[in-house]
Amino acid sequence: MDTSFIEDLPRGPLDHYRSQANFDWKKLKLVFEEPDFLKVKLNVWRTLEKDPLFQRPAITPTTDEQKRITALQFHQYCKYNFLPPDAQNLPYKRKTKYMMTVNEAIAVCFPDVSVKYAIGVSLFTNTLQTLGTERHQHMFQAAWNRQILSCLALTEVAHGSNTKQVRTTATYDKNTQEFVIHTPDFEAAKCWVGNLGKTCTVALLFAQLYTDGQCHGLHAFVVPIRNPKTLLPYPGIVVGDIGEKVGLNGIDNGFVIFNNYRIPREYLLNRTADVTPEGDYESSFSEPGKILGAALENLSTGRMGICQESVNNLICAVTISIRYAAVRRQFSDNGNGNGNGGDNHELPIIEYQLHQWRLFPYVASAAVFKMFITCLTDDYLTAVEKTTTSTSARLNGLGDLVAEIHAIISATKPLFTWSCRDAIQESREACGGHGYLKSARLGDLRNINDPCVTYEGDNNVLIQQTSNWLLRQWLTLKQEGKVNSPLNTCTFLKEYRVILSRKFSANVTVNVDYILSLYEWLITYLICETDKKQQKLLDEGQSKFAARNNFQVYRAGPLSRIYGEYLALRHYWKRIHDVNTDQNLMPVLENLASMYGLSSLDKHLIYFYQGNFASGPDLITCIKEGILKLCCALKPHIVSIVDALAPPDFVVNSVLGKADGKLYQHLQTEFFQNPGGMSRPSWWHEIIIEGAPDFKCKSKL
Amino acid sequence: MDTSFIEDLPRGPLDHYRSQANFDWKKLKLVFEEPDFLKVKLNVWRTLEKDPLFQRPAITPTTDEQKRITALQFHQYCKYNFLPPDAQNLPYKRKTKYMMTVNEAIAVCFPDVSVKYAIGVSLFTNTLQTLGTERHQHMFQAAWNRQILSCLALTEVAHGSNTKQVRTTATYDKNTQEFVIHTPDFEAAKCWVGNLGKTCTVALLFAQLYTDGQCHGLHAFVVPIRNPKTLLPYPGIVVGDIGEKVGLNGIDNGFVIFNNYRIPREYLLNRTADVTPEGDYESSFSEPGKILGAALENLSTGRMGICQESVNNLICAVTISIRYAAVRRQFSDNGNGNGNGGDNHELPIIEYQLHQWRLFPYVASAAVFKMFITCLTDDYLTAVEKTTTSTSARLNGLGDLVAEIHAIISATKPLFTWSCRDAIQESREACGGHGYLKSARLGDLRNINDPCVTYEGDNNVLIQQTSNWLLRQWLTLKQEGKVNSPLNTCTFLKEYRVILSRKFSANVTVNVDYILSLYEWLITYLICETDKKQQKLLDEGQSKFAARNNFQVYRAGPLSRIYGEYLALRHYWKRIHDVNTDQNLMPVLENLASMYGLSSLDKHLIYFYQGNFASGPDLITCIKEGILKLCCALKPHIVSIVDALAPPDFVVNSVLGKADGKLYQHLQTEFFQNPGGMSRPSWWHEIIIEGAPDFKCKSKL
Repeated sequence: MDTSFIEDLPRGPLDHYRSQANFDWKKLKLVFEEPDFLKVKLNVWRTLEKDPLFQRPAITPTTDEQKRITALQFHQYCKYNFLPPDAQNLPYKRKTKYMMTVNEAIAVCFPDVSVKYAIGVSLFTNTLQTLGTERHQHMFQAAWNRQILSCLALTEVAHGSNTKQVRTTATYDKNTQEFVIHTPDFEAAKCWVGNLGKTCTVALLFAQLYTDGQCHGLHAFVVPIRNPKTLLPYPGIVVGDIGEKVGLNGIDNGFVIFNNYRIPREYLLNRTADVTPEGDYESSFSEPGKILGAALENLSTGRMGICQESVNNLICAVTISIRYAAVRRQFSDNGNGNGNGGDNHELPIIEYQLHQWRLFPYVASAAVFKMFITCLTDDYLTAVEKTTTSTSARLNGLGDLVAEIHAIISATKPLFTWSCRDAIQESREACGGHGYLKSARLGDLRNINDPCVTYEGDNNVLIQQTSNWLLRQWLTLKQEGKVNSPLNTCTFLKEYRVILSRKFSANVTVNVDYILSLYEWLITYLICETDKKQQKLLDEGQSKFAARNNFQVYRAGPLSRIYGEYLALRHYWKRIHDVNTDQNLMPVLENLASMYGLSSLDKHLIYFYQGNFASGPDLITCIKEGILKLCCALKPHIVSIVDALAPPDFVVNSVLGKADGKLYQHLQTEFFQNPGGMSRPSWWHEIIIEGAPDFKCKSKL
Repeated sequence: MDTSFIEDLPRGPLDHYRSQANFDWKKLKLVFEEPDFLKVKLNVWRTLEKDPLFQRPAITPTTDEQKRITALQFHQYCKYNFLPPDAQNLPYKRKTKYMMTVNEAIAVCFPDVSVKYAIGVSLFTNTLQTLGTERHQHMFQAAWNRQILSCLALTEVAHGSNTKQVRTTATYDKNTQEFVIHTPDFEAAKCWVGNLGKTCTVALLFAQLYTDGQCHGLHAFVVPIRNPKTLLPYPGIVVGDIGEKVGLNGIDNGFVIFNNYRIPREYLLNRTADVTPEGDYESSFSEPGKILGAALENLSTGRMGICQESVNNLICAVTISIRYAAVRRQFSDNGNGNGNGGDNHELPIIEYQLHQWRLFPYVASAAVFKMFITCLTDDYLTAVEKTTTSTSARLNGLGDLVAEIHAIISATKPLFTWSCRDAIQESREACGGHGYLKSARLGDLRNINDPCVTYEGDNNVLIQQTSNWLLRQWLTLKQEGKVNSPLNTCTFLKEYRVILSRKFSANVTVNVDYILSLYEWLITYLICETDKKQQKLLDEGQSKFAARNNFQVYRAGPLSRIYGEYLALRHYWKRIHDVNTDQNLMPVLENLASMYGLSSLDKHLIYFYQGNFASGPDLITCIKEGILKLCCALKPHIVSIVDALAPPDFVVNSVLGKADGKLYQHLQTEFFQNPGGMSRPSWWHEIIIEGAPDFKCKSKL
């Protein structure tokens, strides 16, 4: 295995723990990352690190300046064209993986640029390809050449999750052969639209299409917003920036109100439905709902991107907190626990079991998710490839595959973004006061991950799609004795009778396979319970809508989350066996799997008792003591595991988490170089109080 | 009950739910707040609301400008002198409560000002009173008159929690009768010191006192930092601002490095120990450790303040998310769940069980904590009063009282700050995308509460003091058959045999008293388990230090947290009975108690199975279904409960949580008034691309 392209780590205080690992961290890195793709990322990072435009400002600029810098970085990033030269000629799947890899590289260090590109170019061009026709080809080209910058205008002030009910209208006027775009009131103003606030020139707009007073549902239109030569908005619209956000202020999220704003008929994206010049609505699909489905399918790519980013943010968070914990010392065992005059007899805080228990499960999550997202990306791209190359997808059973992928992503995005949220917070707290420094970056990571839990499908709403799918499989199983699970993620349900009859036995060996079998019991049990609850609620006369809302909390919700965890662990476990992993790495990879599985199960233990799978303390002891043993087993290796997961310092970008471990030297540099940090404030005279005594002057005593 | 001084709420979309409450929200408010103190707060808020200096900036200023504004606000706030005119003449306890109330009022809306005052004036003057003597009286006066601004320099770069081992030295030089303050290296630089970065003129410094080469441990000194006439630092020190933080950037947290910096001998705070001019160290206590104890006891007041702030931040968070949930509509039950053209047939999201379950427990926490902190403040002030007026505290058994108060606060501060953290995050997510707006304020609340979990005692370290105290009680109980619990918080342990023999019975009535009895079982069980584990680890040869570190995760940690929850619920429950509450309010107050108790217990259910208190699904069903029933029961009242808890709009300061419920009107104002939001950016020409097509011009098609 060629690891020579991976740079050595600088020597320093982390050597103490690095020397304890019994494996080569570079080899482990190449389990987590495919070499070809890692090389692409390293190239992106090395290039940006040398570019003055991509240096981090020492003081947070105003939000206006952040928007300016992001816009300039966006253009520069596009100019670099980081795709390998031959990528354009590669087959769809490999080409797309390269594109996703480049995005991954930029997203982890310049998330605003990634979002600007994703919304401004990728989503627009993808949608033109999916929903547009040859008459939109020139727009496609203009977007690729950055001559136009787009945005995606779907969400409205009063409608987020319930996208189907957005109220912006596009009414066809056959006299002028134009669509008249209109916003009935402020509540129907498009809002939160990234790039719309200041910079986009066109919008990809979703509006209710009307012909002759009849509504045909949501359709996509290309709507000019600003004159690309002046960046001034066109007459007939009120467009602006929604203002400061918790983070991602480099993105100009905007709102727009259309006042009977006219666009040419041809700006309707007409692959699946069109309006003739005379005003006849013609659909190539039988149902408007399916048109929408095709249009919104593009969002899955966005969700995959979010998962990718969340894993990388999670990795950054644990890199910071683990390296800090390996260097930071506090207290010692000298009889009173107070340490010995602050010298190095104090223990690195990573030595404390509580600290291990707080952080190691997130390191395990990072490892498991990193592998899982690679598998999921492969499955996803394979499915997309099949869908786009098949002429009659439904007939070939691809509908089942698409539905399953959708169910998986709907569980994965919440799982990843919530885990990332928790890992960042725990890391922030585990770094103590220093974790509250902006230069520690944990605050920024939190602000960046934060919108991910509610956008591109609010986690709490999105995850219901997973349980809905699982319940459909359960119904099919009971009615037809099969499940429609081409990826086999829930085929085990067919054995539900056997699974549900299992009981915990205290003398079992708790390895990964056993953990997976515990998950299978949990999922089967929770599907049954959800189904039962649904039946009960329906029998009580509740509507299907009401029943579904009333089985979320303790049944469908946990079901989806647990299914997500199960998939992550299963894919990780399968992949490290599939890819012919170095045997030397297997023990640590297995410990990570067990840590992920047990610490996740620790939150769900109660179901095993509710479902009579276990009774008494044995299962609990088994899981909890297992976790503590794994803390101990992982400790000598954890710094090197993090080395294998971590991107370079330029990317992690934290004063607390640098690879050389020279924590206090970097803090000193940070304090001393803080611009203006040691100078008197310009407003000093405003706060001087008359007659203040000067205590330095001893005579005043 | 006179409620006339409480303003009516504006009418609007929240009326729908307000009309459903079967109680008078103003009367409920006066259960949560004592009228005299509420009036003080209302006066603070009304005054600040009219003062231009206290208007929120439309755009976040630079951190430097934030520091300037905070400094000016601090002086203005002091000038207002919000204490009632007669407060100075009141007995200690009532006077202090007024002072705490004023602090509470400023902290909830201008936390930086509160911190600046607490560190700059309160802590300094309190410490001078506790540790200083008459020779420091002029400093006390100068601080009260704002002629000097102080800071508290304890933490060092490499020492936070382990304060006893800070390394800054103060070496007495008898030749000049001065102390020589010295920082051995950067790791011993004082840092994170609020007010030190730019504005303070003196520091209250903790350093290791040396005479004739002998170390006498930590002592407090007043150390001049800046010339009060010029705000320039004195020679011999390197002082600066540590730079940007995640929040609270109005505070100038600083670092300082002393280079054999000399201060007069008299600047040692010498109440408990002194150095004679000739260099003899004289202590009035027998052990240096106790001197430190007295010095650091002042920190308890800080922790009480943090608890108070956390409750108020929690209240703000749920005010925002509950009001939003009562107005925001999404989806409806029209057969497909998609709503009906976006009109008002969609359901307010508060109608969804999942949404109730996500938020209502935090409303219950807010109510319970609000009452609990009032009780705790009374207990605390009573204890302080007793301690300061008794001449021989120890002989009177006050040591036990102080120890118990310390144990309670050590559990309460983590409980409150962590609950607040979780409530803010859940509220942020429950407000969807709009929750990510800066003007929603949830991001700011998160950034403000965030440092509270690690400062004034890192939660994970601090909470160990609670379990240590509980274990001491357990030991005393086993050895002497009693517990030293003057406040009776763990007297029930004496019945441990009876308590541990209890079992769950399915036909029990789950009322608050029963919930409290479940807590007593839990605490007793976990003390036993912790003690057993400790014995086991000691028997295996582990040191006491090691054993203590190795029983935290699943035993001592949960024990302390559960004890904190128990106290909160017990005090709440007792107080609403003690204060002669309007019978009309009792049902809702009881439901809030049950909701708090059950939703807290829901996280600890597994212990009941581990300890064989229960088996099978009954207890689980009982708790979980109980929570869902309470969601349903609380729903008609929850908006009015929040009205009773919430401070005025000026304080909540959220575009999403205003009392009139006119969500979309406020959003519109926010969007339209966002400075520069609708104008072209000044840097527009920098991002124009040559040859961009103008799609508005139809001829280009």
